Amino acid sequence: MYKLVLIRHGESTWNLENRFTGWTDVDLTPTGVSQALSAGQLLKAEGYDFDVAYTSVLKRAIHTLWHVLDAMDRTWLPVVKSWRLNERHYGALQGLNKADMAAQYGDEQVLVWRRSYDTPPPALEPSDPRSERNDRRYARLKPEDIPLTECLKDTVARVIPFWTEALAPAIQSGKRVVVAAHGNSIRALVKYLDGISDADIVGLNIPNGIPLVYELDADLKPIRRYYLGDAEAAARAAAAVAAQGKA
Amino acid sequence: MYKLVLIRHGESTWNLENRFTGWTDVDLTPTGVSQALSAGQLLKAEGYDFDVAYTSVLKRAIHTLWHVLDAMDRTWLPVVKSWRLNERHYGALQGLNKADMAAQYGDEQVLVWRRSYDTPPPALEPSDPRSERNDRRYARLKPEDIPLTECLKDTVARVIPFWTEALAPAIQSGKRVVVAAHGNSIRALVKYLDGISDADIVGLNIPNGIPLVYELDADLKPIRRYYLGDAEAAARAAAAVAAQGKA
Repeated sequence: MYKLVLIRHGESTWNLENRFTGWTDVDLTPTGVSQALSAGQLLKAEGYDFDVAYTSVLKRAIHTLWHVLDAMDRTWLPVVKSWRLNERHYGALQGLNKADMAAQYGDEQVLVWRRSYDTPPPALEPSDPRSERNDRRYARLKPEDIPLTECLKDTVARVIPFWTEALAPAIQSGKRVVVAAHGNSIRALVKYLDGISDADIVGLNIPNGIPLVYELDADLKPIRRYYLGDAEAAARAAAAVAAQGKA
Repeated sequence: MYKLVLIRHGESTWNLENRFTGWTDVDLTPTGVSQALSAGQLLKAEGYDFDVAYTSVLKRAIHTLWHVLDAMDRTWLPVVKSWRLNERHYGALQGLNKADMAAQYGDEQVLVWRRSYDTPPPALEPSDPRSERNDRRYARLKPEDIPLTECLKDTVARVIPFWTEALAPAIQSGKRVVVAAHGNSIRALVKYLDGISDADIVGLNIPNGIPLVYELDADLKPIRRYYLGDAEAAARAAAAVAAQGKA
């Protein structure tokens, strides 16, 4: 049996300001730093250890991982960073306030933008200064692989190749894997691993900074999935994520 | 022409306590953190940028690199960690105070231990609790590759393969490389790159947290070598390193 640990980054400045973030590279708040350190301390206290760590190319996830590794005294572990673990791209909504958008367009429209499986938010113009097409960190990608917006279906389409080509082989080679990523890149993995339907994934929210443990069989089929630590706190944190899009 | 930047970690807790450190995994002091952040700010202000970063598996170098990358807003860069960039192993002296040892054995003996090219300090016993042979981070090495002591010649012998197999190919492929490492792993690189004699390397000291820039020709032969920033401050810092072994 294998174990896999997924951690959504701690609270970011734009989580706190209730803004759509996507690929915008905002940092953790002090609360987010504490959440990340607590996640690492909890993993250590529960006897977890790792051989390799994965994260996105966005600093709120990278810093979360660094704090987790610090708390576990595992700074020396190899770390692989991939754009495929980035948050879902939020298109032209990036930077805008979720409650403002709900007041302007209605809670239902915002829920569609936030949680519809296959309806993306309005796209960024390639010339928009918010577009990542001029960001050096994505220079090795084909321009058409750098999204201008994404629905979760699009995120799934670029996360799962990373599961297949990087995470799954590492796990099956016996390496203990931790992934520090984002609400929607983790939702993409959970949908895939647990076979959640396009309709049901809408209601699934990932709390910040709480380790999500998968126990997997030899074929990497999930046996169990659970949050480490206080289950009620995890449920409250997930409910708070769900409530962010209300006016 | 290529550029290569080498940075010795910022001040560590055992630099401050004047203890022989070697492979002991001590952290930065607050001063060391400031030095690392300043190094990153200086690199950014001078227009430096990188494509890949290398460091050791010791946290004083890893944290130095993290602070440099933070200051440059380059947390997303790929980072390769290798034991081959570790500090010289200090054998049975690891943990002991440099000035105490000088009072006990004389300045000259300590200078030999610190700077002799080919005389290692007394070796650790493999059963010594300070030995790294039970440290999981080195588990993939052959036991005989995990040193019990090293002179600089030994350090050169395990650093240069990393130059040849990792750093040199990366530089020649056009990647801009930064290395955050240690006094003696950097001295090993400097000795090799500049062809410094076994006798002359004794007098060369690397200050903490000041970027050392190499300009290299197409064959990676050095054209120039210089510290970034205040040259006098770098010289003073190097002299302070040289003075650490005095009673």
